[in-house]
Amino acid sequence: MKEITLKSPLDMHLHLRDEEMLKLVTPLTTQTFAGAVIMPNLVPPVDTLEALVSYRERITAALGDDVFKPYMALFFRDYSEAELAAAKDEMIGIKLYPAGATTNSEAGVKALDAVEPTFKMMEEMGIPLMVHGETHGFVMDREKEFLASYEYLAKKFPKLQITMEHITTADAVDLMGKYENLRATVTLQHLIITLDDVAGGMLNPHLFCKPIAKRPEDREALLQAALDANPSLMFGSDSAPHPLSKKECCGCAAGVFTAPLALARLAQLFDKHDKLENLQDFVSGNAQRLYGITPLEKKVKLENTPFEVPSAYTGHGQHVVPMHAGETLDWSVTHIS
Amino acid sequence: MKEITLKSPLDMHLHLRDEEMLKLVTPLTTQTFAGAVIMPNLVPPVDTLEALVSYRERITAALGDDVFKPYMALFFRDYSEAELAAAKDEMIGIKLYPAGATTNSEAGVKALDAVEPTFKMMEEMGIPLMVHGETHGFVMDREKEFLASYEYLAKKFPKLQITMEHITTADAVDLMGKYENLRATVTLQHLIITLDDVAGGMLNPHLFCKPIAKRPEDREALLQAALDANPSLMFGSDSAPHPLSKKECCGCAAGVFTAPLALARLAQLFDKHDKLENLQDFVSGNAQRLYGITPLEKKVKLENTPFEVPSAYTGHGQHVVPMHAGETLDWSVTHIS
Repeated sequence: MKEITLKSPLDMHLHLRDEEMLKLVTPLTTQTFAGAVIMPNLVPPVDTLEALVSYRERITAALGDDVFKPYMALFFRDYSEAELAAAKDEMIGIKLYPAGATTNSEAGVKALDAVEPTFKMMEEMGIPLMVHGETHGFVMDREKEFLASYEYLAKKFPKLQITMEHITTADAVDLMGKYENLRATVTLQHLIITLDDVAGGMLNPHLFCKPIAKRPEDREALLQAALDANPSLMFGSDSAPHPLSKKECCGCAAGVFTAPLALARLAQLFDKHDKLENLQDFVSGNAQRLYGITPLEKKVKLENTPFEVPSAYTGHGQHVVPMHAGETLDWSVTHIS
Repeated sequence: MKEITLKSPLDMHLHLRDEEMLKLVTPLTTQTFAGAVIMPNLVPPVDTLEALVSYRERITAALGDDVFKPYMALFFRDYSEAELAAAKDEMIGIKLYPAGATTNSEAGVKALDAVEPTFKMMEEMGIPLMVHGETHGFVMDREKEFLASYEYLAKKFPKLQITMEHITTADAVDLMGKYENLRATVTLQHLIITLDDVAGGMLNPHLFCKPIAKRPEDREALLQAALDANPSLMFGSDSAPHPLSKKECCGCAAGVFTAPLALARLAQLFDKHDKLENLQDFVSGNAQRLYGITPLEKKVKLENTPFEVPSAYTGHGQHVVPMHAGETLDWSVTHIS
């Protein structure tokens, strides 16, 4: 019997949605994680302090007695200095979805130019920037094409802490080591799957996410960085529930739901590669250091005993199919304190 | 008003399936095409003369009064000389599926070496070989990885006529010009879409096919070769109906259904690029010359008047969603004689 006890595991990129879906999925993260960075892409987006505080209250109401801190993020827009000052202590950072970026990386940077005053204020006030780094180019090239924009920002704002969210390519792994202020999150699924698993056999909507899973050599580079607990890399599940009706219909939404099995699957993965000793840094230590946060105390014990992943998580009128639905994992969470 | 009258259009790669689906889809091809190469990947595959004759009878029964010739193909296996001699005049060629690569192809050959005696006999008897050329590698590399096998066969059997079926890459376009006995078919969808259309926005199961659509530069090379009526390239729709239940479920089957709109969409495409004059060779002339066939006489007039593609074709208890479902094309078939 092998085991590991993780201290205060953190999910640095999480979607909890809202309303009934929020009620279903929140406990599925808060049971095993001590905290998570909550993505602000609701409709409408969370882009005021009031919306942020209100969203946090809905999350807190949904997590019951679980020891868990939601690290709230604002949705990027042109903020005034007064707005940033007021929100600063209530959030962990601001998430940018670069709608203006194009295939042409120079034009992408230009789109970023327009909002540089906000970056400048964030840098001066010590507010981290989190970025969904994709251009609007060909689906397999979008992240790679955006890397020049990351580099531009990292150089132009050397004190701005920039997180490349959910990286999927070997090129991004290379880049994150290059600038001290450039770090990254990576999901569970991008350590495991490639485009083959999405579209190589039958089309699998439950493994379809954005950024899309890339080539075998990309997965290899991401996995190696995670297993090595690369000091610039943090776990961020990007766990993203969609109702079944949005996943198996014609025109399937992007997102993989991994929250309830993430730690067990990571333990299995790190154990398989004899790197269990690095899991603590990957799922908490690196994030604590990079963001300068001290999470709530929580101990999650995992052992190599089988865990049967449910075929779906249901409740509150919702029905969400997780990754590895119906499969049996080798590791499971056995105790939480 | 622009118009073009195509003489005896041919679809050099077509799936008609069997039973009720065959009854629904056969007239949707035979109305506008003078002939088509019928793929033999039924379950079980069409790999005896008896099965081939019987399948042809079922097709003939389904096409009603339409002027149409089904060019039958056998499913590749180790055939004896006597079998080949008996079947030779009843078929246009033999289709090889490397094992496991596409729908119903599990019976395909495992290694090319082992079956060289059959290739040799085919070469001597003048029986063309049609190949689904994909390896079992990473989904975006499968065709490119198979090109060396095409080259090996083309050199080793210089008199064997080899068709690279449904090519999807610029590399395949380059290769088909390199050997006199190496020609290719290309589908409608691969002249129009890339992986972006399948998985760049929402996941679109109705544009998911094997080989999967590739990169923009691949589509560009395929389109250019088609517009130029490259003498080694033939139209082969690979129109592949699946019941709706197999397309929008979790785990979607591969295949795009284009038969009923193929000629109108091709006319629109060639017209857009001012290449209408090359459409005749692309949809018939090249195939006649490369296969040495004289098709039945049929004239199909197309004009640039709108054609509303149905959201589905139904009948015989079947329900098939075509490419461009619910969209309006700029060209339509206006007269057939």
